Amino acid sequence: MTRGDLIERTVASIRPPDEAARADALRLLDAKTKPPGSLGRLEELACRLAGIRGDVPPRPLVPAIVVAAADHGVAARGVSAYPQEVTAQMLANFANGGAAVCVLAREAGARLVVVDAGVIGGAEIAGARSEIVDGVRGTDDLTLGPAMSRSTAIGAIERGIALAGELAGDGVEIVGLGEMGIGNTTAASALTAALLTADVERVCGRGTGLDDEGLARKVDAVRRGLAVNGLPGPDAVPADVLAAVGGLEIAFLAGVCLGAAARRLAILLDGFITSAAGLIAAGMQPLSAGSMIAATRSPEPGQALVLEALGLEPLIDLRLRLGEGTGAALALPLVRSAVAILADMTTFDSAGVSGRAARLDDAVPVVADA
Amino acid sequence: MTRGDLIERTVASIRPPDEAARADALRLLDAKTKPPGSLGRLEELACRLAGIRGDVPPRPLVPAIVVAAADHGVAARGVSAYPQEVTAQMLANFANGGAAVCVLAREAGARLVVVDAGVIGGAEIAGARSEIVDGVRGTDDLTLGPAMSRSTAIGAIERGIALAGELAGDGVEIVGLGEMGIGNTTAASALTAALLTADVERVCGRGTGLDDEGLARKVDAVRRGLAVNGLPGPDAVPADVLAAVGGLEIAFLAGVCLGAAARRLAILLDGFITSAAGLIAAGMQPLSAGSMIAATRSPEPGQALVLEALGLEPLIDLRLRLGEGTGAALALPLVRSAVAILADMTTFDSAGVSGRAARLDDAVPVVADA
Repeated sequence: MTRGDLIERTVASIRPPDEAARADALRLLDAKTKPPGSLGRLEELACRLAGIRGDVPPRPLVPAIVVAAADHGVAARGVSAYPQEVTAQMLANFANGGAAVCVLAREAGARLVVVDAGVIGGAEIAGARSEIVDGVRGTDDLTLGPAMSRSTAIGAIERGIALAGELAGDGVEIVGLGEMGIGNTTAASALTAALLTADVERVCGRGTGLDDEGLARKVDAVRRGLAVNGLPGPDAVPADVLAAVGGLEIAFLAGVCLGAAARRLAILLDGFITSAAGLIAAGMQPLSAGSMIAATRSPEPGQALVLEALGLEPLIDLRLRLGEGTGAALALPLVRSAVAILADMTTFDSAGVSGRAARLDDAVPVVADA
Repeated sequence: MTRGDLIERTVASIRPPDEAARADALRLLDAKTKPPGSLGRLEELACRLAGIRGDVPPRPLVPAIVVAAADHGVAARGVSAYPQEVTAQMLANFANGGAAVCVLAREAGARLVVVDAGVIGGAEIAGARSEIVDGVRGTDDLTLGPAMSRSTAIGAIERGIALAGELAGDGVEIVGLGEMGIGNTTAASALTAALLTADVERVCGRGTGLDDEGLARKVDAVRRGLAVNGLPGPDAVPADVLAAVGGLEIAFLAGVCLGAAARRLAILLDGFITSAAGLIAAGMQPLSAGSMIAATRSPEPGQALVLEALGLEPLIDLRLRLGEGTGAALALPLVRSAVAILADMTTFDSAGVSGRAARLDDAVPVVADA
């Protein structure tokens, strides 16, 4: 199979959410012993899951979290508060089970898949799944030219599609996305600015803790990256933009989105970087956004722009700015609860509970004024 | 023991949060492999739990949810979209395990305690714990005079204190509050308006689904209730206000707050009505607010006023307007996760991960401009 064929087949196989299943879920929810809609966004979530899965969901949805790590040449530009070697150290930390996402995935009962999508020194780390394409470990500096070749970007996307297929084969029904990579909010900012034709200063935030000077360096790096790569360009397709300024882990996760959507898995986006991966996937196949759920609001201003473009509203807002998939893991109990409400709550009929009065006055014994 | 003695002893025994434990938790969090504070409100929650419990928390905190139900004479004023008999029907639904809070408590692994605090017809319902004071089932119509006697209100508070003591004895470490009672957002609105000297129209919302006329009736009922009971009055202590316009379940839950704070249990407030119960408790002993955590943002406008007065910000905002303790149950996994982060995450030292550069420039290899 030629590189690119898997993407083409996958994109062609993605279908819109099942509106009949969604309507069934809503009907079922309205028969439950509660005022209609009174469980708010938990009910919306239950309906969305029904539409994605193509059926009123069984419980529990089997979850996995994929945390993909890679290095970024742009780290050399002083766009992060941490040195580049932290990427490899954190990949080892993921593999050893001690990082935040490891703890939170365990709490949520989710399998954690740790992916080396291009970490400098990653080959030495046991327990990480190697998804290296063309031997590339770390992108080139996007301020000097393309971060990677178009072929490598395509290859990384296809690795992500393949992993999603594997997870679906293992019975996984919802996949949370996570990422790690020193410098990757800069890459995600450049992607967002290019794909949404957004003002660079409106997109860039402080990442894991930049000071004013660091933020200025980041804005400058994104501006240079766009300029040197001729972005935003009228003819640039998402894969071109990804190759120009993206990261290997972002490409991989965009592939996970496409593969998951094709297999009708629900997708839980985490913070800014995974949302940018979702934006790439939606750029390649808009229907894939129908399978996405935004787990958490990021303080990065670029994420709000991306989620607006995807039509998504985050489930939680705890001012998380760690990434790794921590927000996706924290949202999993809400997913589980939404499904449980559908499956386990009793109905007005079976519980013998009176419904809302047909006219409000029927519920109101008129009392003489005192 | 004379009625009132238990309240007096309980109020006197409540201590402020343990600042040393809180500081220990923060120090521990800052050594974990993540940028300081990057888990946002999850870290604040972990520190708050440490302060409440008086130690860096063990895991998992053993949870219980107390859902208390009672009837309200003011229901006769047409202030709810549902008829009064729904209170008893829902009490039976709680006892039978089919209501939303039952499903969500099971998902959260929390014991559910179903309390009949004064439901008309509640005596017939098996599986509900009877906490009837002075034989009172349902308050009187607050628009015509006091909802209950001061002595009954005191008695109901003391029943709540006693239950919290029992739960503490059983090893419970965090208690979520829930409620049910047709007409009880009207009672909570009157309590809030009286205790915070707030404008009635700013406090009242649509409850489980009032139309414009229903909302107008509710505002009118609260106004009459305050006027006929001489509220807000300069000398009215919280117990007086509670007797004048409160509900039996609200009194009971205010007692649970006081008893839980005295035993250093963390308290998870749910929506508007349980927040009003927290406000009563804080009126009787301001230190009790130090043990409270707001689980969920209610669409009822009065709740925002109450939480501001208590100094609390909700953990989740899913537009829930059901009550019952559903928001408290949905917040429990966040509590569990906050504690797990403290207990299970590795530190920079033990994982061999480089920390943030002392000066940002140390992390930045200076690169000649291209």
